[in-house]
Amino acid sequence: MPTLNPTSTTFSAEQLRQFTTRVFTHFNVPDEDAALAADVLAYSDEHGIDSHGIARLKTYVDLLHAGRINPRPAIKIIRGKGSVATVDGDNGLGLVVGPKCMELAMQKAQEHGSGWISVSNTNHYGAAGYYPVMALKEDLIGMSMTNTTKGVAPFNGAEKMLGTNPVAIAFPGLNEPPVLIDFASSAVAYGKVEIASRKGQTMPVGWCIDKDGHDTQIPAEMMQGGALLPLGSTTEGSGHKGYCLAAMVDILSAVLSGANWGPYATPFAITVAAMDRQVGKGIGHFFGALDIEGFRDKTEFKRDIDDWIQTMRNTKPLPGTEGVRIPGDPEREAYAIRLKDGIPVNHEVVASLEAVAGLTGIALY
Amino acid sequence: MPTLNPTSTTFSAEQLRQFTTRVFTHFNVPDEDAALAADVLAYSDEHGIDSHGIARLKTYVDLLHAGRINPRPAIKIIRGKGSVATVDGDNGLGLVVGPKCMELAMQKAQEHGSGWISVSNTNHYGAAGYYPVMALKEDLIGMSMTNTTKGVAPFNGAEKMLGTNPVAIAFPGLNEPPVLIDFASSAVAYGKVEIASRKGQTMPVGWCIDKDGHDTQIPAEMMQGGALLPLGSTTEGSGHKGYCLAAMVDILSAVLSGANWGPYATPFAITVAAMDRQVGKGIGHFFGALDIEGFRDKTEFKRDIDDWIQTMRNTKPLPGTEGVRIPGDPEREAYAIRLKDGIPVNHEVVASLEAVAGLTGIALY
Repeated sequence: MPTLNPTSTTFSAEQLRQFTTRVFTHFNVPDEDAALAADVLAYSDEHGIDSHGIARLKTYVDLLHAGRINPRPAIKIIRGKGSVATVDGDNGLGLVVGPKCMELAMQKAQEHGSGWISVSNTNHYGAAGYYPVMALKEDLIGMSMTNTTKGVAPFNGAEKMLGTNPVAIAFPGLNEPPVLIDFASSAVAYGKVEIASRKGQTMPVGWCIDKDGHDTQIPAEMMQGGALLPLGSTTEGSGHKGYCLAAMVDILSAVLSGANWGPYATPFAITVAAMDRQVGKGIGHFFGALDIEGFRDKTEFKRDIDDWIQTMRNTKPLPGTEGVRIPGDPEREAYAIRLKDGIPVNHEVVASLEAVAGLTGIALY
Repeated sequence: MPTLNPTSTTFSAEQLRQFTTRVFTHFNVPDEDAALAADVLAYSDEHGIDSHGIARLKTYVDLLHAGRINPRPAIKIIRGKGSVATVDGDNGLGLVVGPKCMELAMQKAQEHGSGWISVSNTNHYGAAGYYPVMALKEDLIGMSMTNTTKGVAPFNGAEKMLGTNPVAIAFPGLNEPPVLIDFASSAVAYGKVEIASRKGQTMPVGWCIDKDGHDTQIPAEMMQGGALLPLGSTTEGSGHKGYCLAAMVDILSAVLSGANWGPYATPFAITVAAMDRQVGKGIGHFFGALDIEGFRDKTEFKRDIDDWIQTMRNTKPLPGTEGVRIPGDPEREAYAIRLKDGIPVNHEVVASLEAVAGLTGIALY
């Protein structure tokens, strides 16, 4: 049974995974795909990425229920050459299309030294970091990117034109854990604005602009027609660099695959109407895999990654901080705690799950 | 003849190119390689990237003169598989090793759909953007990265452990110019600190820390044992993301190739002693090329890039700014001006060139 706390209810990972699987199956998603999609969401919940796990289930359900996502996609390679290919996701769940395309990139890496898959006609794929972690199991360097619904202003722009467009890549260690990089190209995730809003707090300068393009520290002013800023935020902070990153992700994921790019990316919300202009199909992802053995002996590489990790950890710490951590540490720490204590789900999210339970007749508890 | 101005002397691109070529030849660099190296430097000068062109010639000369760079490297593929390979640059000029490895990535892309080359035992390769521009000529998407001498603190660190590690990638347009992305993963380039120092100005918060890890706005305090901050700078600005980017570049360029990574990257300065610890050979680069035709019809892709560019340009402008530009615009604007008016070289750099002229007996004017 879940444990009730003042602001959250604690579930075991297994409870959430079973609930999610059954919910997807209810909407005609094949059993194997439902389990896969549940696994992608569970990865986020287990690793402390609360914005991308079970908290999103209600939105996937809304879109499946409304027929805006295809539960049984015929995922097709529509073009390719050696190490690269384009896949049409047939408007399936990104949580299903994503892992299948990452598998394809990995197969190509085993055969050709690297594999690169650009994907159109797909939907929100969960946490970007899930995909490179898949590749680690085969000692491949894995990479993933996706474009997302517009939320970010390009540098020197005053309106949303790009998504938070994340990049993830992972490198295996030998005795050390992997270096796991996963970050959005905006200054902060939209989730941080929501949290400030919920707590009635102001935000730091550099996160957001309001609907007229003026800096704002008030969450509501961003949420009512404003925009997030790209990583770097300002002229002095090199906000043009975050814009460049978002552009790179948008083009590799969506222009290269023939998906909707930039401001036309399909909204991931039932309350948002479809775009007035379609420039492609669905949203886009981009997956990559590199065979380490094509470059170096993999054990030597992993030993050097261990050395790299230890060297970075030994950096003189910035005063007043815990010092240098390794990309992936926060997720690993959350995992260790949640494996033991379960997953705290905040009451707003629990309410959304109860709504899903009500709609489907599948018991949450 | 060059034109004298109060703070600079204006040269034609051709004058600088000829001087540079002759200088490299003087140090026993083969004619063809010298012309190639001069072309890489000229790209920066012609495109307004003043920190990476002729301003660096003196350093290359110092290192060649001291025998710390090999003028006649035997560049070798030491390992490979299908679309990927590792190259040993035999301690050659990065300005020569770089273009040859980018060519190899492009050949592999033509054959396998993509090509990825990790390079060890090389040196400073000029502006990262030169390499993806090479790929545009064959309608390939080109990418380059390199690690560089330590100058940047990892997030929550108080000392230099990583380089400014840039990333560059370019996408061809049809009637529009290419989207050309080229940026360092630090908040700013070290050159901006030098400029503030020269002008006796303070710097914005978020650029640098001093030798004890405290924020500083005084250039000298960074220059005397301090460090640059990664893109994002602070906790609120998501400085961990710039650190992640720098880590990615460092690992793909140097750990994957067997070069010196992180704080051990070979210094690009005659005044800095070799590192006390070697963890590989030289510094590292990473080059990539993707065949657009492997993913989509290239004309359709380029037409969509045109649309993407026009869409971004039409973004509502941020008040008080010139509005949204396209990555590559600043370089294109500088090119148009410099093609007409010549290249202004500041007097400190001119003095360094006069020293090179004195050392080699090659006339600058």
